[in-house]
Amino acid sequence: MSREDWKLPRTLRDRELAGLTWQPEGDIASPDGFRAAGVHCGIKNKRLDLALVVSDPLANAAGLFTTNRVPAPPVVYCRQRLEESQTAKALVVNSGNANACTGERGWKDTLEMALLVSKAVGCAPEQVLVASTGVIGRTMPMEALRSGVPLAAAALGADGQGAAEAIMTTDTKKKNAAVRVQLSGGAVTIGGMAKGSGMIAPDMQPAPHATTLVFLTSDAVVGAEDLQELLGAAMAGSFNSITVDGDTSTNDTAICLANGASSVGLDSAEDREIFARSLMALATKLALDVVADGEGASRVIEVRVTGAADDGEAKKVARTVAESPLVKTAFCAGEPNWGRLMMAIGRSGCTIDPERIGISVGDLEIVRTGLGTDHLADDLIREMTRDEVTVAIELGLGRGQSTMWTCDLSEEYVRINARYLT
Amino acid sequence: MSREDWKLPRTLRDRELAGLTWQPEGDIASPDGFRAAGVHCGIKNKRLDLALVVSDPLANAAGLFTTNRVPAPPVVYCRQRLEESQTAKALVVNSGNANACTGERGWKDTLEMALLVSKAVGCAPEQVLVASTGVIGRTMPMEALRSGVPLAAAALGADGQGAAEAIMTTDTKKKNAAVRVQLSGGAVTIGGMAKGSGMIAPDMQPAPHATTLVFLTSDAVVGAEDLQELLGAAMAGSFNSITVDGDTSTNDTAICLANGASSVGLDSAEDREIFARSLMALATKLALDVVADGEGASRVIEVRVTGAADDGEAKKVARTVAESPLVKTAFCAGEPNWGRLMMAIGRSGCTIDPERIGISVGDLEIVRTGLGTDHLADDLIREMTRDEVTVAIELGLGRGQSTMWTCDLSEEYVRINARYLT
Repeated sequence: MSREDWKLPRTLRDRELAGLTWQPEGDIASPDGFRAAGVHCGIKNKRLDLALVVSDPLANAAGLFTTNRVPAPPVVYCRQRLEESQTAKALVVNSGNANACTGERGWKDTLEMALLVSKAVGCAPEQVLVASTGVIGRTMPMEALRSGVPLAAAALGADGQGAAEAIMTTDTKKKNAAVRVQLSGGAVTIGGMAKGSGMIAPDMQPAPHATTLVFLTSDAVVGAEDLQELLGAAMAGSFNSITVDGDTSTNDTAICLANGASSVGLDSAEDREIFARSLMALATKLALDVVADGEGASRVIEVRVTGAADDGEAKKVARTVAESPLVKTAFCAGEPNWGRLMMAIGRSGCTIDPERIGISVGDLEIVRTGLGTDHLADDLIREMTRDEVTVAIELGLGRGQSTMWTCDLSEEYVRINARYLT
Repeated sequence: MSREDWKLPRTLRDRELAGLTWQPEGDIASPDGFRAAGVHCGIKNKRLDLALVVSDPLANAAGLFTTNRVPAPPVVYCRQRLEESQTAKALVVNSGNANACTGERGWKDTLEMALLVSKAVGCAPEQVLVASTGVIGRTMPMEALRSGVPLAAAALGADGQGAAEAIMTTDTKKKNAAVRVQLSGGAVTIGGMAKGSGMIAPDMQPAPHATTLVFLTSDAVVGAEDLQELLGAAMAGSFNSITVDGDTSTNDTAICLANGASSVGLDSAEDREIFARSLMALATKLALDVVADGEGASRVIEVRVTGAADDGEAKKVARTVAESPLVKTAFCAGEPNWGRLMMAIGRSGCTIDPERIGISVGDLEIVRTGLGTDHLADDLIREMTRDEVTVAIELGLGRGQSTMWTCDLSEEYVRINARYLT
């Protein structure tokens, strides 16, 4: 697919994203009271590697973090900060080094990163959140940070594009967006940026699955508890529903800041509903950008499961299909081997009645009552090789439903990951 | 690796296989009273595609089958047969067509395969077990079977090499072996054959995970109940401990026949122990042959986990590491990125204390107390690119341990599976 053509996913255009006002060139600094910068500090060779986001008013803050039992020091740090106080003034993110498996030294480096930012932007160190992504097991080159943080602070401005670029690792393009949302008291803006293209199966808790980093900002007035709940719901339907390789990272982080600069709050149930839907839509847009940019990916595959015993079972079936190497390789070159879908459904461990299974790929019905229809292999190949493919699986048992998004598994994925460091 | 050099795995030579008497060119027909044949009947183009194994005395029979909820008709059939009577006279196996997702027609074809064999070899249809492997979702070309089964019956003989070849799909070499076992009452022989190179993560129950087919024979006198227990234990330590792609097939089948032709039984606890160990060693040899011949594999990786809270947790950690695409691609070209091992250990969901983790690859200690040692990347690359690699993970928590075997994930795996049918 042409990466440039990937604006709004077709499946989303038809659904969740309808009716939203997307900001052209919108980004994490689009909401009022936020400034951002992306600079090169020297962790990576030449490319931007340090992002800074500052909220001028103190913002309420919510976070979700990896479920991986070997969490990186910045993850442990943010979790602690948000337990102590659900507020933040600044967010610093580096790429090129995950600061994971770095022990006591990694912890100290995280604290120093917060301290450097606090001095450069004029806030308390406790008001700074820290995230890192990149190679695991290398100590952070602190000299680069010591010179880079002041540079980033000096570059802070209304444009968040550089910040989005500075958090990229194997990503081939930056991922950011902003929406304008009309509430009863006035308009608010939600912005965001994300990165991720490998080690992606985010499972952030309390709720999502990837190294996926997601940062969302808004100038709406939202209480801290409410913000945490809204972020959890938005992640569950977006980043926790994507998978590139099933590998949940040590550094997955999602942070949402709401600084109230618009003075517009969520004054009614309807306002809250509209805001919640918009936040989820923005997160979904970013999540799909991550899948589309998955390592070696040539297409996005939506796996939509209906008719399961319950939503949890539907999710398990959708995830098993979306993570099956045999299914993912089949979509690489368009291998019309639908038996692999049946295999994956069957190995999910869920309640299945094979004779009730129906499967369509795009508009083509390929399985009915568990048996292949008399479709033509060439028709299936055509449906399988579109830029966006929807695999609809009806289990015929109950009302449970769930959707996962994934990409195909290509020779390029192997090339990228067999020679990442070398 | 040179496939021809793969005789006995090094790790096994040092351990379980020590002291066993392997039969040169041994196979499924090596035990007394068994005959076998492999012929071309026309399911595949030119290659052998139909195997027949006959026990002259009625044999006791034990079986383990896939946990996939979309089991193929031959799997359902064998399960039913063995529930009714734990005996069998013959076993027919075809490759090229899995007879899965074929509904009522697939069931009738399975019954007809049993009937064809019963007529050709002179036994009751209920005494015939049936297994199939190949493409899912295509009806069996019964004309080929109708002409092929009598051909196979006419070709039955003491050589089981043809049968082992006839059950191959994407396998590049046949897998069979036999051992001679000295018991207190005399010597017995155990033989076997297996196939599998993709869709391999056997989980056969009551106990193993792949399409893996495993067939074992012995001329020992073993009661049916005892045989089922011995097969379960042998599979748990062998085929249920291997994974190529994490995809559990619709057709996984393990069958063990014991016909008593040697008149030597398991007369003491020691005899039973020796027989059990030998059966497991044979199954392990075949399982490792399957991993070594995994689609696109260039090396075998043993993941040995010790110090887990219990054996179940150790297994989960070992399986998560062995199935991680990022770990498997790292071993393809020797990418010295040990952080991926830490990531996979952490995402297993098991109890972990990162600071207690130690990891060695081959003789090289790469992680101590959760931190990288000062090993040289070049040394790690050398250890990672041997034909057989052992990754030893010590969790430092308890006495739980487990081992999994896997292979690397290469561009060749994608090539094979992106264009299997086309």
